[in-house]
Amino acid sequence: MSLLVQKFGGTSVATIDHITNVARRIKKSRADGNDVVVVVSAMGKETDRLVGLIEEVDVRTSPDIRRETDVLLSTGEQVTISLLSMTLMKLDVPARSFTGGQVRILTDGQHTRARIESIDTDRMRATLAEGKVVVVAGFQGVDAEGDITTFGRGGSDTTAVALAAVLEADECQIYTDVEGVFTTDPRVVEEARCLDEITFEEMLELASLGSRVLHTRAVEFASKYQVPLRVLSSFGESDGTLIAGEDRISMEQPLISGIAFTADEAKLTVRGVRDVPGIASKILVPISEAAIEVDMIVQNVSADQSTDFTFTVSRGDYEQARSILEGVAGDIGAAEVSGDNKIAKLSIVGVGMRSHAGVASKMFRVLADESINIQMISTSEIKISVVFDEKYLELAARALHTAFGLAETQ
Amino acid sequence: MSLLVQKFGGTSVATIDHITNVARRIKKSRADGNDVVVVVSAMGKETDRLVGLIEEVDVRTSPDIRRETDVLLSTGEQVTISLLSMTLMKLDVPARSFTGGQVRILTDGQHTRARIESIDTDRMRATLAEGKVVVVAGFQGVDAEGDITTFGRGGSDTTAVALAAVLEADECQIYTDVEGVFTTDPRVVEEARCLDEITFEEMLELASLGSRVLHTRAVEFASKYQVPLRVLSSFGESDGTLIAGEDRISMEQPLISGIAFTADEAKLTVRGVRDVPGIASKILVPISEAAIEVDMIVQNVSADQSTDFTFTVSRGDYEQARSILEGVAGDIGAAEVSGDNKIAKLSIVGVGMRSHAGVASKMFRVLADESINIQMISTSEIKISVVFDEKYLELAARALHTAFGLAETQ
Repeated sequence: MSLLVQKFGGTSVATIDHITNVARRIKKSRADGNDVVVVVSAMGKETDRLVGLIEEVDVRTSPDIRRETDVLLSTGEQVTISLLSMTLMKLDVPARSFTGGQVRILTDGQHTRARIESIDTDRMRATLAEGKVVVVAGFQGVDAEGDITTFGRGGSDTTAVALAAVLEADECQIYTDVEGVFTTDPRVVEEARCLDEITFEEMLELASLGSRVLHTRAVEFASKYQVPLRVLSSFGESDGTLIAGEDRISMEQPLISGIAFTADEAKLTVRGVRDVPGIASKILVPISEAAIEVDMIVQNVSADQSTDFTFTVSRGDYEQARSILEGVAGDIGAAEVSGDNKIAKLSIVGVGMRSHAGVASKMFRVLADESINIQMISTSEIKISVVFDEKYLELAARALHTAFGLAETQ
Repeated sequence: MSLLVQKFGGTSVATIDHITNVARRIKKSRADGNDVVVVVSAMGKETDRLVGLIEEVDVRTSPDIRRETDVLLSTGEQVTISLLSMTLMKLDVPARSFTGGQVRILTDGQHTRARIESIDTDRMRATLAEGKVVVVAGFQGVDAEGDITTFGRGGSDTTAVALAAVLEADECQIYTDVEGVFTTDPRVVEEARCLDEITFEEMLELASLGSRVLHTRAVEFASKYQVPLRVLSSFGESDGTLIAGEDRISMEQPLISGIAFTADEAKLTVRGVRDVPGIASKILVPISEAAIEVDMIVQNVSADQSTDFTFTVSRGDYEQARSILEGVAGDIGAAEVSGDNKIAKLSIVGVGMRSHAGVASKMFRVLADESINIQMISTSEIKISVVFDEKYLELAARALHTAFGLAETQ
């Protein structure tokens, strides 16, 4: 007898028909001999509807306003838990719903971005012992005052992983509208293949690069508590992708597991900067004060006393970042500010590259063979990212996908 | 400094514009030097939307299903408290929302029709002491397990009166979409006038007879705890109608306060019933087992050994009740079952008739002058009800309204 935590996102519970489909899956998991704890999001566009109401009120945010935002948003998941529990009972599956507060998901008091501090498993275990499915509202908890808190984006995934951790579940299954984690974006590379398994580290690198299957925070959480995660489709029948620690993944790791990319990038270069301590922060502090997120940063060693400093931002932030840089260029004695908002970033990710030399050189050779000029390079232990003209993005993705044999079943 | 409990129903909070209107009223009450506790219902048709979702699930009811129904329905009010609190803050009025559970409105475990057992005033008083408006979700509480419960129809009125009682508020103001309690239905009698005041007893008689301004349960509750109630419009500027104990109402009571009526009635007569003990229950038990509500019951003393037994039901129940009666007629040795589903019931209500003889005879004379034949009569201490052919309803209402001087300001 295994204990599974199953999480169903908004698309999977968008209508009563969808909820019925979810209830049937849960019934099947039970028939297969598992105890099930379910975590659900708000139905389809419900959260958007509620956010729309807040926008209509049109009030400046504040801690008190954020407190009320949480009171409002948490109703979305509360609606789903009751409807799913009713639907399960209709299918003769005993079930009981719980809000975040009712299973004592205790958080700090940071409304709209609360962090979980503890979870009381007593009521869930007692309900499972009664032979019932436990249906928990995702995305929400309560603080020490009994005030409702929410977790921000990807919050229901976080709830699922946290419950799986405290209940020591055998697996945390994240049901979504895709079949699993793919080697790359199937809309661009037709041969993209659903991975059977992938490590937490690889998933984190892929997720943060745009493969938006799972929220980064949930993967970090799962990695920290070594909760095996499985991403699978609410609508299909495949086993999806298992995301786990390296000890749980097959011995024979492929060289690379996936290719992530985004065309939504821009780069900015400050040329002829004096190469002295503190110069990077003088450039980046005004950027971060404008709430612009910086991604890749490259600075070369200087031959003389000056250097070039280059970084990438989201394309939407390009104009603002550029005008900030032009404002500070004089202060830091820079010769010139230049930029390019027609670039793409592509990364190859794989724990296999730790033990195999030559992954980078192979990647660069493949790109060179296609006459793609690499403008920036950045590497981590299990990832190599490059920036190039965005017009080459599809070509590069396809060539690398083939070169690294990602289309072939392992 | 007074403490007011103000309740706003679904129509008053149907949109953000409506909620803004409500927030302005609350702001004004505060500017007038009052502390304010607000109770709100779900927005407009939100409860209907949620009930529609339950109907879509289409599951037989049970205690567990009713538990989930409460989890679902309670979200309606939770949405309103957050939006109203935000809107108040936007108008620079400090405010804080509370669900039923958060102010510890403790109830029994009878889901969808729970009864309040106790309310903890600590958190509300502390919030008022901070200079904030307390915004409480109507219609809901929690049971000893921490499970969400709801109160059934008119539940938000009940919450408001209960909070006023435990907080010893100076007045419980029920804001609605009508100006107050009228002498009779203004759609039928043009001269109908909004009453300045009325006693709890009179209000109970009028409410149960179809003047659906306030739910009977809330009035009973207010009467029991002697909480002065005021019904007034969310949209107008008048003082509405004060409903209170006789000690709070002006000395000079009018003879009658109001005329209630409904055309939605039917009567059934079992003729030639043997006049022996237990015969009434033999007739009525099968009716009540079919969940048909019986209103007026009239049985005359019998001259010989048999009598006629007549009662009224809602028109929608007429056919079913009639066929049940025909089924039992043989068992009780009845000669005949007859009926009429074209009747109306009209009642005049007033504490003044306690001390004034002749109210009944005046009523009957007025009806006789209009050639209206009375088919049934039933009286209580402060009410006289009659049944007649429904075609005379408007005529009777107008004639009595004039005869008892109800149009004249007191």
